[in-house]
Amino acid sequence: MEKIAIIGAGLIGRAWAMVFARAGHEVSLYDAQPGAVEQALPLIREGLAETQRVGLITESPDQIMPRFKACATLEEAVRDADYVQENTSEREDVKRVVFSQLDAAAKPSCILASSTSTIQTSRFADHVPGRSRCLVAHPVNPPHVVPIVELSPAEFTDPAVVERARVLHASVGQVPILVKKEVEGFILNRLQAALLIESWRLVDEGYVSAEDLDKTIRDGLGLRWAFMGPFETIDLNAPGGVADYAVRYGPKLTGMMQGVTARPWEGDLVKKVEAERRELMPQSEHAAREAWRDRRLMALVAHKRAMDKQP
Amino acid sequence: MEKIAIIGAGLIGRAWAMVFARAGHEVSLYDAQPGAVEQALPLIREGLAETQRVGLITESPDQIMPRFKACATLEEAVRDADYVQENTSEREDVKRVVFSQLDAAAKPSCILASSTSTIQTSRFADHVPGRSRCLVAHPVNPPHVVPIVELSPAEFTDPAVVERARVLHASVGQVPILVKKEVEGFILNRLQAALLIESWRLVDEGYVSAEDLDKTIRDGLGLRWAFMGPFETIDLNAPGGVADYAVRYGPKLTGMMQGVTARPWEGDLVKKVEAERRELMPQSEHAAREAWRDRRLMALVAHKRAMDKQP
Repeated sequence: MEKIAIIGAGLIGRAWAMVFARAGHEVSLYDAQPGAVEQALPLIREGLAETQRVGLITESPDQIMPRFKACATLEEAVRDADYVQENTSEREDVKRVVFSQLDAAAKPSCILASSTSTIQTSRFADHVPGRSRCLVAHPVNPPHVVPIVELSPAEFTDPAVVERARVLHASVGQVPILVKKEVEGFILNRLQAALLIESWRLVDEGYVSAEDLDKTIRDGLGLRWAFMGPFETIDLNAPGGVADYAVRYGPKLTGMMQGVTARPWEGDLVKKVEAERRELMPQSEHAAREAWRDRRLMALVAHKRAMDKQP
Repeated sequence: MEKIAIIGAGLIGRAWAMVFARAGHEVSLYDAQPGAVEQALPLIREGLAETQRVGLITESPDQIMPRFKACATLEEAVRDADYVQENTSEREDVKRVVFSQLDAAAKPSCILASSTSTIQTSRFADHVPGRSRCLVAHPVNPPHVVPIVELSPAEFTDPAVVERARVLHASVGQVPILVKKEVEGFILNRLQAALLIESWRLVDEGYVSAEDLDKTIRDGLGLRWAFMGPFETIDLNAPGGVADYAVRYGPKLTGMMQGVTARPWEGDLVKKVEAERRELMPQSEHAAREAWRDRRLMALVAHKRAMDKQP
């Protein structure tokens, strides 16, 4: 078992702590905010209990909690670590300082990974002497439920480090993917941006309501995407597979989007969508609906695991 | 109960027949190909048996099959119908002739709907005397499993007809949405096009493999989209809801896609994705994997229904 250090014990840090500890690893926790780790531990216990209830883990919180170690300093947390997952503020200046500290404190073989969703490795680690062991490991919130992890190294990152990170994430039940070259938004947020830009535009131009657009995905295409992704979806949607699909439908699908460009999401457009959403869900129910979403995500992941075991 | 006529007894026509018959309606079937309806009925029985096995329906095929009536002529099929679902060739010239025949044969109050995925109502029904009762009701294959139906009327379609079609589809357990103005690709295929264009581009430019891109959706964003859609997803991803999200992330997400345009899906790019897909799934397994997909879709829909009943 490897030793893991979690730097930053907020929502994402806590979820990562669960991911590694439930897989059997020892997990050191540090947060620059005094008392934050002590506040995080009971929340982690609750999170583990919930995932046990829905059948995503079999061990009890009592079995897992002893694997955590609250640390008073960053140095103490990373001293023996084999892998560090950093979850501090989403600010380049902060991460640059933190990665200098991590590199100074960690043993040479330790991997240093950031949860950042927007800052490339080459921007927060280029100045670090041990930059070849630095990379992005971008999760989707919450990573103890949603398995995807985008590994995005810089050109200076050692490929062996990327491979070790990939093996580690796969071994704890995450689904790591490789972003081969640095790109803004990595893969996931670019795909989300593409879908959102057309979604806002279709509402903006009066073709559909936001509610009906959501239905189109959640009761239509989203059902396929939830277990196949877009390429397998189209591979199965033409008798001759994806190449056949490209010939049959490519010109029509790319053609219909020619000249469509992103417009700002602001003004009356935002007011319109906001009004629709508040009709469907008052803002006062936001936190409860987030909890509902996480329960639904857990149940969906459990459903997919059960289905994956069938022939 | 209303009387339904299904014109064209191929894959989509058979699925529609199941949708209406399992809801208790009498369903007349006609296909211009002699013998096609007789061949369709045993396949419909199999389809009903499978949906019963996975718990999507409670009645047995023996209870449902007597609701079908094989008809030798189009006129016989639509004579008493309240609603016609047309599923003939995806050709404008064919549909124009068929809609003339339907309009001549059906009683005045009957709704005439087409399953077309690409031809607007104004193109196949503008010449029809009763064009005000014509519209598109576009399903996703297979409609007896995937509930979305895009209702796309022309300007000349009577709004009362659209509303009656909406009520009928909702009453049989489909999820109808309204395309308020005619637009190429309706809503669903435009959203699919947006996601696919960026997917092909990211593979083309060497950022990611097709397999890893599929994982990014199916083990990441696709999990949310499968039960929320894109707008509810972002509404819950900012503390202040969708308007807050637009301010926080709009400029970044729209900005990163500036200047990105659709490129043809052809040549080496298609060869690359095709090679990846054939490595993951030999072409010889295409039909078996389609059957797997439909089983997974049925199980996912059953899972969502069970979850929807929870608080």
